[in-house]
Amino acid sequence: MPKSTDKTRIIHPHTYLKSNKIGVGIYLDYASSANPECANPGAIHSLGVREKNKLENARKNVAAILQSQSSEVIFTSGSTESNNLAILGVLNAAKEKIPHFITTNIEHSSVLEIFKYLEEHKKAEVTFVEAEQNGMIDPEKIRKALKPNTVLVSVMYANGEIGTIEPLHAIGKVIRHYNKINSRKILFHTDATQAVNYLPIQVAKLGVDLMSFSSSKFYGPKGIGILYVKKNTPIRKIMFGGDHEFGLRPGTESVILALGLAEALTFTEKIKIKEVKRLVKLRDYFFTELHKIFSSEGPTPVVRGRAQDKKFHEAKFIINGDLKNRLPNNVNITIPNIPGDLLVIELSARGIMASAKSACKMGDEKASYVIKAIDKNIRETDGSIRFSLGRATTKRDIIYTVKVLSQILIKLKKWYTQHT
Amino acid sequence: MPKSTDKTRIIHPHTYLKSNKIGVGIYLDYASSANPECANPGAIHSLGVREKNKLENARKNVAAILQSQSSEVIFTSGSTESNNLAILGVLNAAKEKIPHFITTNIEHSSVLEIFKYLEEHKKAEVTFVEAEQNGMIDPEKIRKALKPNTVLVSVMYANGEIGTIEPLHAIGKVIRHYNKINSRKILFHTDATQAVNYLPIQVAKLGVDLMSFSSSKFYGPKGIGILYVKKNTPIRKIMFGGDHEFGLRPGTESVILALGLAEALTFTEKIKIKEVKRLVKLRDYFFTELHKIFSSEGPTPVVRGRAQDKKFHEAKFIINGDLKNRLPNNVNITIPNIPGDLLVIELSARGIMASAKSACKMGDEKASYVIKAIDKNIRETDGSIRFSLGRATTKRDIIYTVKVLSQILIKLKKWYTQHT
Repeated sequence: MPKSTDKTRIIHPHTYLKSNKIGVGIYLDYASSANPECANPGAIHSLGVREKNKLENARKNVAAILQSQSSEVIFTSGSTESNNLAILGVLNAAKEKIPHFITTNIEHSSVLEIFKYLEEHKKAEVTFVEAEQNGMIDPEKIRKALKPNTVLVSVMYANGEIGTIEPLHAIGKVIRHYNKINSRKILFHTDATQAVNYLPIQVAKLGVDLMSFSSSKFYGPKGIGILYVKKNTPIRKIMFGGDHEFGLRPGTESVILALGLAEALTFTEKIKIKEVKRLVKLRDYFFTELHKIFSSEGPTPVVRGRAQDKKFHEAKFIINGDLKNRLPNNVNITIPNIPGDLLVIELSARGIMASAKSACKMGDEKASYVIKAIDKNIRETDGSIRFSLGRATTKRDIIYTVKVLSQILIKLKKWYTQHT
Repeated sequence: MPKSTDKTRIIHPHTYLKSNKIGVGIYLDYASSANPECANPGAIHSLGVREKNKLENARKNVAAILQSQSSEVIFTSGSTESNNLAILGVLNAAKEKIPHFITTNIEHSSVLEIFKYLEEHKKAEVTFVEAEQNGMIDPEKIRKALKPNTVLVSVMYANGEIGTIEPLHAIGKVIRHYNKINSRKILFHTDATQAVNYLPIQVAKLGVDLMSFSSSKFYGPKGIGILYVKKNTPIRKIMFGGDHEFGLRPGTESVILALGLAEALTFTEKIKIKEVKRLVKLRDYFFTELHKIFSSEGPTPVVRGRAQDKKFHEAKFIINGDLKNRLPNNVNITIPNIPGDLLVIELSARGIMASAKSACKMGDEKASYVIKAIDKNIRETDGSIRFSLGRATTKRDIIYTVKVLSQILIKLKKWYTQHT
């Protein structure tokens, strides 16, 4: 054992610790995390405990906004992982021999692709409820799809491409009613990724058991997301490792990303009402201006809901998605005979960044699968373009954008008239 | 169509774009990524292309260090996900009816737990090769475990707890020999998480098909990792969504984290040789000083390799793991009858951060499973403690730490002597 004389030779901790490089003590846990300032929240030394506290504070702040319990908030790497954990995790826990899932045909690819895989590999039965022409999901169609082996209904809160806000409340009611009558516990999941900036996200009011979202969509850091998991929801992890995140998601949490997410979400909540009002005005102004540049020639613009109109493809532009149940920041139009990618590139060359379809499904099909889903008659030559507004968007930006778009359309007119 | 008179009313792009808030143009792609400065690398507008270029540059830099192709570098959320993708991904692609895997009993929990799950749920056959008393894996034992239905061998590059460097080259040779004779294509995966700071990571030289590592262990940001996947390796994604990362890992990449990883890895490579030399010296000095404080009383300290020695549990301290094949930054000792957690807390109270066992497996068992694996006779009361050194560690830190440890041991002496 150590000699007791050693004791007298020890410098007082404060004297030494203040003078060393780290400034927080002597860090000898580099194998756990190389950066002492971002120690491993699973470590039991004081720096680990400090990080753990920060992490749990971030979780608490998120839970307060969702009006949930802290233990219902799971940090993931983003919406894609959250969606995978929600759906595959419920599948892993399901006792049904062939579990049945209900979803829609306009979900984000991370939801759609899971279900396509499950169906293809016969791991589950899946009903893809088709969206209406305005992009809305009919709760009655969900009701009709419910079966004795249904385990989960997954319907997005708002569609990122066409901005349609889905009737979550009505769908939740349908599920709860079915559960009550049949003594079942069918779960309700929503991908709220595109909704967080503008819509209420208090989980109890929404009536969901599982809700996914991603920090980078509400001005937080990229690389972190949330899966809300209601207490007592039967779900199992889909990756294996340590017992992080209540055993549902292994891997050391990035505390700094969690703090960034919580801070961004707090600010989003704070400005939500005001920002919604501001953007609805801007969005509607955008639509009005678009009408103006098209109205000088050809027939009146046709709104998606009237797609059966024979004159549909004679229209000069079409607004995609419901006009009323619509995200405040979404403007999505189809311009027949002009490819969306071309418009995006022409706009980009003039300093305007828009999108032709989800960046997650680039290059694998010509038209957006969401637009195809709401318009069976769309041709590959009909391009759609999405303008999604945000905190820095001004009326001046819209005026400028519409003018530039008008200029581009004149340039493309030759090509355009050759094809109509 | 637009009136051509509109054209004349357009402000010149540069005049307008310079004056607006974003400074990079008009950003109307908030639904894709809320931050224009971190646009979605999947977007086709100029900001998206810029991000995509940054991402591919980061990938190229990582590939250059690994001496691999860029398309062999997959960004994940960290080592845990990389390990899951490597093992479950190979399982997903396996054609064998019951695929057989070989691993060891001292892998990180993210590898061990996957295999335990696969075995338990009869999704695969798994051989857990036992480490020797010095923590080394015997390539001969791997050879004996190879079977006609073996699809993958997963052996860590270096153990994070006891610092043992495993004989990857010899194990790779054994696998290649078996493959050649039997016309098989058994894959070789290594979890290199703890090795990247100090050991060569050129994949061809290592002879691996798959290699996992995490940015936060080499002073990069937390929340990102790499899975190296050799060209033509049969592997399938484990999460579903967009076609990011060559179809192997869905979810928009965090470009800023990827840049951080690449930068940290580049610097790590640059200082590797010098840092290894410096830390080996410090580590061995640490061991020498530990010997000194224990040598005044009791029998000579016993090194793990000699654990069969009858006097083992009379030893005052035991060095865990091989002394030669050892990470330059690892000091791991067992002090019989003193709980490791207690030591960590006592040290932390004096400003010294060490670790009792992997932070990923806290609270679920008393002693570290790695120490248990190399010492079947260890008692729950025998605590082990790991000091892992790093870039800021100085000789003065070691001197101070050993003194403080000695002081703590004197304090615990009463308790200690009561129990021996």
